Formats: sequence, structure tokens, C-alpha cells
Amino acid sequence: MKQSMTLIPTLREVPADAEVKSHQLLLRAGFIRQNSSGVYSFLPLGKKVLQKVEAIVREEMDEAGAVELLMPALQQAELWQESERWYSYGPELMRLKDRNEREFAMGPTHEEVITSLIRDEIKSYKRLPLTLYQIQTKFRDELRPRFGLLRGREFIMKDAYSFHANQESLDEAYQKLFIAYSNIFRRCGLNFRAVIADSGAMGGKDTHEFMVLSDVGEDTIAYSDASDYAANIEMAPVITNYEKPQTAEKELEKIETIGKKSIEDVSVYLNVEAKDCIKSLLFKVNDKHVLVLVRGDHEVNDIKLKNFFSASVVELAEPEETKQILGCSIGSLGPIAVSGNVEIIADHAVAAIVNGVCGANEEDYHYINVNPSRDFKEVKFTDLRFILEGDPSPDGNGTIQFAKGIEVGHVFKLGTRYSEAMDASILDENGRKQPMIMGCYGIGVSRTLAAVAEQFNDENGLAWPVNLAPYQVHVIPVNMKDQAQSGLAEELYASFRKQGYEVLMDDRQERPGVKFTDSDLIGIPVRITVGKKAADGIVEVKLRKTGEVHELSKSEIGAKLGGFLGL
Amino acid sequence: MKQSMTLIPTLREVPADAEVKSHQLLLRAGFIRQNSSGVYSFLPLGKKVLQKVEAIVREEMDEAGAVELLMPALQQAELWQESERWYSYGPELMRLKDRNEREFAMGPTHEEVITSLIRDEIKSYKRLPLTLYQIQTKFRDELRPRFGLLRGREFIMKDAYSFHANQESLDEAYQKLFIAYSNIFRRCGLNFRAVIADSGAMGGKDTHEFMVLSDVGEDTIAYSDASDYAANIEMAPVITNYEKPQTAEKELEKIETIGKKSIEDVSVYLNVEAKDCIKSLLFKVNDKHVLVLVRGDHEVNDIKLKNFFSASVVELAEPEETKQILGCSIGSLGPIAVSGNVEIIADHAVAAIVNGVCGANEEDYHYINVNPSRDFKEVKFTDLRFILEGDPSPDGNGTIQFAKGIEVGHVFKLGTRYSEAMDASILDENGRKQPMIMGCYGIGVSRTLAAVAEQFNDENGLAWPVNLAPYQVHVIPVNMKDQAQSGLAEELYASFRKQGYEVLMDDRQERPGVKFTDSDLIGIPVRITVGKKAADGIVEVKLRKTGEVHELSKSEIGAKLGGFLGL
Repeated sequence: MKQSMTLIPTLREVPADAEVKSHQLLLRAGFIRQNSSGVYSFLPLGKKVLQKVEAIVREEMDEAGAVELLMPALQQAELWQESERWYSYGPELMRLKDRNEREFAMGPTHEEVITSLIRDEIKSYKRLPLTLYQIQTKFRDELRPRFGLLRGREFIMKDAYSFHANQESLDEAYQKLFIAYSNIFRRCGLNFRAVIADSGAMGGKDTHEFMVLSDVGEDTIAYSDASDYAANIEMAPVITNYEKPQTAEKELEKIETIGKKSIEDVSVYLNVEAKDCIKSLLFKVNDKHVLVLVRGDHEVNDIKLKNFFSASVVELAEPEETKQILGCSIGSLGPIAVSGNVEIIADHAVAAIVNGVCGANEEDYHYINVNPSRDFKEVKFTDLRFILEGDPSPDGNGTIQFAKGIEVGHVFKLGTRYSEAMDASILDENGRKQPMIMGCYGIGVSRTLAAVAEQFNDENGLAWPVNLAPYQVHVIPVNMKDQAQSGLAEELYASFRKQGYEVLMDDRQERPGVKFTDSDLIGIPVRITVGKKAADGIVEVKLRKTGEVHELSKSEIGAKLGGFLGL
Repeated sequence: MKQSMTLIPTLREVPADAEVKSHQLLLRAGFIRQNSSGVYSFLPLGKKVLQKVEAIVREEMDEAGAVELLMPALQQAELWQESERWYSYGPELMRLKDRNEREFAMGPTHEEVITSLIRDEIKSYKRLPLTLYQIQTKFRDELRPRFGLLRGREFIMKDAYSFHANQESLDEAYQKLFIAYSNIFRRCGLNFRAVIADSGAMGGKDTHEFMVLSDVGEDTIAYSDASDYAANIEMAPVITNYEKPQTAEKELEKIETIGKKSIEDVSVYLNVEAKDCIKSLLFKVNDKHVLVLVRGDHEVNDIKLKNFFSASVVELAEPEETKQILGCSIGSLGPIAVSGNVEIIADHAVAAIVNGVCGANEEDYHYINVNPSRDFKEVKFTDLRFILEGDPSPDGNGTIQFAKGIEVGHVFKLGTRYSEAMDASILDENGRKQPMIMGCYGIGVSRTLAAVAEQFNDENGLAWPVNLAPYQVHVIPVNMKDQAQSGLAEELYASFRKQGYEVLMDDRQERPGVKFTDSDLIGIPVRITVGKKAADGIVEVKLRKTGEVHELSKSEIGAKLGGFLGL
């Protein structure tokens, strides 16, 4: 492609409203333009990268046995009413009425459409398993669209759905797609982790998020520094072995602590460490009240609490409720002398506290020299806290580190959530009607593009990995009016294309500085500058990523190009 | 692809609401399914064909120098308000509001979006010409969606837009895209014509529709049987040379014709031919009244009338208006003794009438022995009628035939319609601000798929051209339980795929009749049946289109496959 024939509107200034690198650089390098909040055009270079991501996704999905189809964006409200998501999805679901006042959703996802399609066509276990996918524009009216393509209102997804007659078949498809996803993100050059995500059961293996490690990510990942273990921090179990200090237990004592409410205030006032304080919080778990204890330097993980009680709702009790039940306000709670109906549950770390501090369930009083094994009655100990950096990895290998992640993919065992609600059934081997078992699997295609831009850049611009680069080679004649230069540039352009390379040639009548700055911004892996030595058939090759420079004759370069590109 | 792994839900019955062949067969062969009125899912086979059409479109557009991008479907109302189409587009434009009550259109076309994009990025003639295209899902809330993919509410378009600094540059791009379109539809195997369409100026070359010839088409095409001339019938000029009969002129006479209004009634009553009657119609052309005369067997072409007067509005006068102005009702009008303010215009054919009949502008009276050159005052003669089958072709070669056409493509010189309304300007060579000159170019991608299905079928099902077939080869082991058959089928499946062919294999445990019926329905060009002679390495090759059958050994077949496919 010659630059005079395409549209690459580069910008010198950093756009004011672009907060993150990928957004700034995709705008500045002319890959995208905003149309309205969270809605973008992919300009020619952006479209090229998008197609490369899509091609990789297709190859790996096909390899995993999934079959491509294309469902509509316009989805009848009736289907969403059957699944009841019409009512629960909220304002993120874009809705419209047609000329006959019939309601539609602009699809943010396609569980309803595919479940309705498959229930009409498949009636027997013999036709399963089946995995279908599509690559499609999706719509979600985000409350706060931001970070460019990372959180948009119109975006491109690959979504896949699998249908099964039994759980083993789902497990098998899940495993295949897990591998496909790993291959996809690896081929995109991304530094990512497959992260255990919320599954409804502790330590479950039923859902993974594929997270690209990045400071601009909105999720926190706990990962091992010595294995491939990674989990959403909400999901990581704590396996720390707490050693009990070999200190003599002192006598329990109640101390006045006027106005000291927080762990910090109390620990400073009493001159103890936060880790020797016991944080006591009253929760409402479904319909009962539970007093939850963690160490002063730890935080309660709601999801663990929820899972421990198999509860559907877990929330902190209101201040008034707390006062009514335990007789004091939130900063003075504790597990000693608790009245009848409150269950007490504590994190394992609490059991190892010797001569600790806790609230006395009496306004402005705390106990000191608290020793759980001696002073607590009927307290259950379990894993209740958020994991922390430095904790041992739950898989037994290495130590936990934290990182921020951008979610680019998600594999999820849906089970019968949709097939039951929408009556998608098969007859099994015994002729009995069973709901189909389903999995769903998403990749944010446009978000993946942005995640790659976020990981592959430097102070001069983007620096695409070869697999996703819009072009592989950028030929730059320094002065188009110089016959030797423009002639050699044209010759190389034609010859590289003939060899099968994708080539961009800057045939514009621009100053060399403009051309080089644009070239760095765009970030094509190999730049070939055709300058003053063109008459002697000598050009300069510069690798975008390393800055490595070679001077080569035109006869040498064809043979070396593949090597420069790592092909 | 093995059929057990994909979704090809064939139907034995013709779906009740599918009126045309393509709709029936695409449903029956499992290529598409309806989601709601005018909204379809492309099942795996349909998606494959779609991708083949898209690939051809991309290749030819790229070859023509167009560059691909992707604009959003969600379009801000503000842009459509700038062009004023927000108000004129009517209910076909699907509209919605986001969570902040801002209005959007779901794009049926992208003139507004691309004009706004380009006006922001391009300021100088030096950056033009530029042609951009996208392949994208579009939305149009048709009043009567029908014929399956031929007229849907959600459909796939290739739309392209070109920007120019001068008319010559537009002409050049138009010509290139005209050729690209011809190549695209030729490669799709379609019997089509590039048809001169409404251009605002008679005989103009400023817009062409690409029409696939088909009885289910909604447009009528007038084409030459001896050249590539083709035009929308509204657009075809009539160049017939009317010979005046060598009959003596008789004396004009007024005759009572009580109750005889229509040409048919009058000609029967007076025992003359319709072609000897003069049809007189009063039109309102802009603000004046015009009496229009054509021969009794001809029809007035409004567009020609409109163009003759360069009028913006042409409509038949109301009966009351007619009575008031000419003193009689519609069936008795005529050009003789017309009062002052009515201009009279007649088709050339009228001039050749000898001793004809026309209304007398007096209720229940007609003139006979009317001779225009003698009896008419101040009548202008021009080309005013619709062309008819049998007329000479306007290009001088051959005779006009009629055909129905499905519009699959459209190339159009927009001029400055959008660039002026939306202030998309450049500075020209002289530093003067000029609106950009634009062209737009559309292809109905999903409609093209349906048009191919409409042209390529027989009583047993679809019969795809090789270029668009979802697979090239269909391998059918008659009995999967027979080791020799399933073994040889697997061997051929693997070997053909290795040779680069796209192969579908029917590995289902179905009766042979079901497999063959499905195979005919699906319409893959080459079928290879692996039956009883499998043990001897013999298979049957059947060509879908001709029914031609060959018995071949497995060693012969690899070498012959390309030939069978015409590759």
C-alpha cells in the first residue's frame, strides 16, 4: 500500500481525553477515530490489525472444532424475556422499537439467540456436542465508556457457545477452548495469564478469565512467581500456615478506649501491631447475622464468606442493626460475650493471635490479652480473607504477586442456566428429556487489539509484534523527488510484495523528519530507508522494536527480510 | 468439515412463508434461519458462502485502489441532522436513545459518518483522491421485509465512498469501480447487467445499477439483444423512427362517444386501433399545467417528462382540476381547442398518426380524422414514452428485450450533496476552499448470496458455482458402519484437504437416501460417493450441476478433481 492512497492521519499532540497509552497511540498513529463516546471507526491501519486478530481467532477456533456462523445484532425482546435478562440486564442493554412498536435489543451477547436457534434444530443427544462461534459487532451502553477500545459501547467480540448431552463432554470442549484461547493470546504476542475467576464454588475450575497484564487493567490478579497459578484476587484461597508466637498468655483485661474505633487508632493507642488486633464485622448472610473476624491487617473476602455459607446475599449489617444486635457501634465489636443468635466465624489467621486486642461489645471499650483458644466460644475457623502479596501460592509453588489485568477472554461453564429457562432440551440415550448443558466463551477482539497496543509501545509510538502488525515492512524513500531514491523504493516495494510481504511505502512528498516520526508512531516492525546511498543500491534497515540498524545492499536485503521479521 | 461436527439442519418441506426459490432453498438446505421478520442467522454453510462473496469483493475493491476501514453501526443523530436525512429518511431509519437520552441511528448507509470523518482529517487537494470501503452489517426497517435475504432489515453491505478534488478524478474512480463491480459479479457466476439508472439527466452516465436477471426481481430492465446496453426502463430513451402511413388525410370530425372514456372503449366503439388513438393526460409540472400526448398503445414516462422540464415535481392533475381547466373529465381530453394557459407536449410517435382519434375537451365527444401536423397548434414533440420490447436499442445495436432484475450493486456520482451540507472542504491548487466531490458505491453482500442461490438451483436443491460453494467436494460414505467405506472416505477426506480442497464429509449414521437428498439440497459442486465398491478402491463422482457421473479408482481421482471443479 502506498501512503498517498490510504488514510493514516497521524497526530503530533496527545489527545486531551485519552488517558491510557493504547488509546493515545491508536489515535495518534491514525488507527482509530472516535465517533461518539465509546464508539470508534477503525481506520485502514486499525482495520488491518483487527483482521489479523480475527484470522488468528478463526484458525484456533476452527482447530478446536468450533464452527463459525453469524447471528443477527437485532434480537427480539421476547427471547430476552424468556431468559429474564430483559429485566435484569439494566441500561447497558441497548433497546429499540421497530416501526411496528416491537421491541428489540442490540445484542451485547448471544446466549438467548443461540439457545433459541439450537432448541429448534436439535432434539437428540446424537447431534451433540456442538460448538459454534461468531465474530461480530456487539453493543453495550457502558455507564462510563473509557480507555478507547478497552471499554467501548460498540465493539467486536468473538463469542462461542457449546452444547452438550453430559458434563464430561462440556469439560472436554472447555479444555479444548482453554487451549485455543492460550494459543490465540500467545500468537498475539501478549503477556497474559489464564486466571481462575468467580465460579460459585471455592477453588472451582469452571471459569477462567484471560487477563493481559497491564497497569491500566481494572482487575487485580494474584499470581505465583514460580508457577502458572493465577486467580482473580477474590478467588485465591489462602494456604498460609500461621505460627503461633511462643509467648505466655496474659490475663484478659477490659480497657477504656474512648473514641478509638479503627484498627489503626486502637493499635496506636494501645501500642500493639495491627496484626495483633482482631477486626470484627457484623454481616447479614441471607437472613441471619454472622460476626466475622479477621486479623487487623487483613480484609474480609465477601466471596469466601458467601461460599462458606452457600449464601445468595452477603452484606455488612447497617450501623443501627449492629447496635441493636450487639449493643454497641461498629468500632467496638468483638467475639467475647456475644448474645444468643449471632454465629461467629473467624479467619485461620485469628487462631494464631496471642495476647491480642478486640472490641468489647461495649461502647469505648476493648479487650487486651485476648487469646482465641482460651477466650472464644463456638467460633468456626476457615479461610475468609483476601490473599496478599507475599502469601504462598495456593498451588504450593512460589509466592503470590499482584498484577493488574485487562480481561481479553473468558471461558465459562454455563451449565443449564439458559437451556432450562428457554426449554432447550434433548432426548438422552434412554429417551429421557434433558436440558442441554452449555458453555460460553468470549474474546474481546477489538479489546485485544488495544491490549496489544498497550503492551507494545515505547516513547516514540507503537511497536507491533510481527503477527499483528498492519504491515510487515515500511519502505521510506527520504526524498521522492530524487529519481534514484524513488526508483529504488518502487523496486523494493514491488519485489517485497512479490515475495509475499505486506509492505507500506511512504510515497508522500513530506520532509524526512515527518516521515520518520510517522513511521515510529505507526510501528511497523521493519523500516527500510532509501536515502542518499540509493544510487549505490544501499539502504538502511531499522528494526522498530530494538532500534537495531543495518546498512545493506538491495541484493542482500530480500534474503534477510524474513530473518529480521523473525519468520 | 465433518457433518457430525457442524450444524446443517435440512428441511424436507418447503417453508410456508418462503415465496421465492432462494429463500426456500437457503432455509431448506440449512444455510439460514429467520430470527424475526427480515432478520436472519447465517448458519455455518451460509456463513461460508458469505465469506467467499466477501473475499471476492475485497480482492476486487483492493485491486481498484480502494482501502478498507470499518465505521460504527451506531451513528449519532447530529450527523444525520446535518445532512437533513434525519428528517427525510422516514421510519426505515432505525433509531434509538442511549442511557443519556442521546439519539442514534443504526446505520443503513454511511455517507454522513464518512463525510464527517474525512472533513476532519483532509484539508488539501493533495491528499485526494481517496476511496474507502467497508463490509458491514446494516439496518433498514423495511415496511415489507420479504424474499429472505433479498429484502431484509439487517443485512450485509459493502459500501464505498470516494473523495475528489475535481470531476475528472471522480470519473476515473467511478470507471475503476464499475470494472471492479463487473468483475465481482462475474466471479460470483451471476447473469447480470450494468443498468443505466436514474441520474437526473437523460441518458446520463452518472449512475448504474448492477442487476441480476431474475423473475423475482422487483425492477424492470430494458436491454439490447445484441449489445451490452441495459437501462432501467424509466431511463431508456426511445429512438424508434415512426413511419407515417401513406394515407390521405380526411376531414376532422367531432363524434358523440357517450360513456366511452378509456382508449380501449373508444377504439372498440370507433373501430380503430389503439395506436391510432391519442392519449391525452393533464399533468402538473412544478406550478404549471401541461397536456401530455402519447399514442394509445404507449405509456407516459414521468421521468422523461420531469427531465424535459427540469422539474422537481411531476404529477397527474386531479380530476376536478382537470375539469376546471379543460372543461371536461379525464376520458375526453384532447389537444384541439385548448384554452390559453396549458402547454402541450407530445411524444414523437404522435406526429406519425394519420386520421387518428382524440378527445374533444367536451364531455362524451371525440374527434376522428385527427392529423397532428394539420390540427395541432403549438405542440412540442419529444421522447416521452416508456420504451417497449421490440423497440430498437438506444445504442443502435439490436432490439430491446425486458427482464426483471435484482439490484445487487449501485455506483453513483454523489457530487457535493453531502460535502456541501456537512462542510467537507479542501483547499484547491489555488488555495480556494472547495467542497469535496464524492462518489458512493454499494454492494448488497447478503443479497448477492441470495441472488446466486436464485440463479443456481434445480428441482433437487441448490447448485453452487465453484467460486462460492461452501465446500468444493462432498464425500459421502453410504454406510459409515462399513469399515471399507468409512476407511476410504476418511482417506479421501484427508487427502483432498491436504491438496487444498474444501471438503465436507457426511459421517452421519443416516440412511443413504437421506444423505443423497441432503447433498443435492446443499449443492456442493462435486459429490464423491463411497459405496459398495469401496473395498476395490472404486468410488462414484457426480457433478451437481450436470448430473454427470464417473466411476473412478481412488488413485485416479486426486488428479481429476481439479478438472471436475473447472479449476
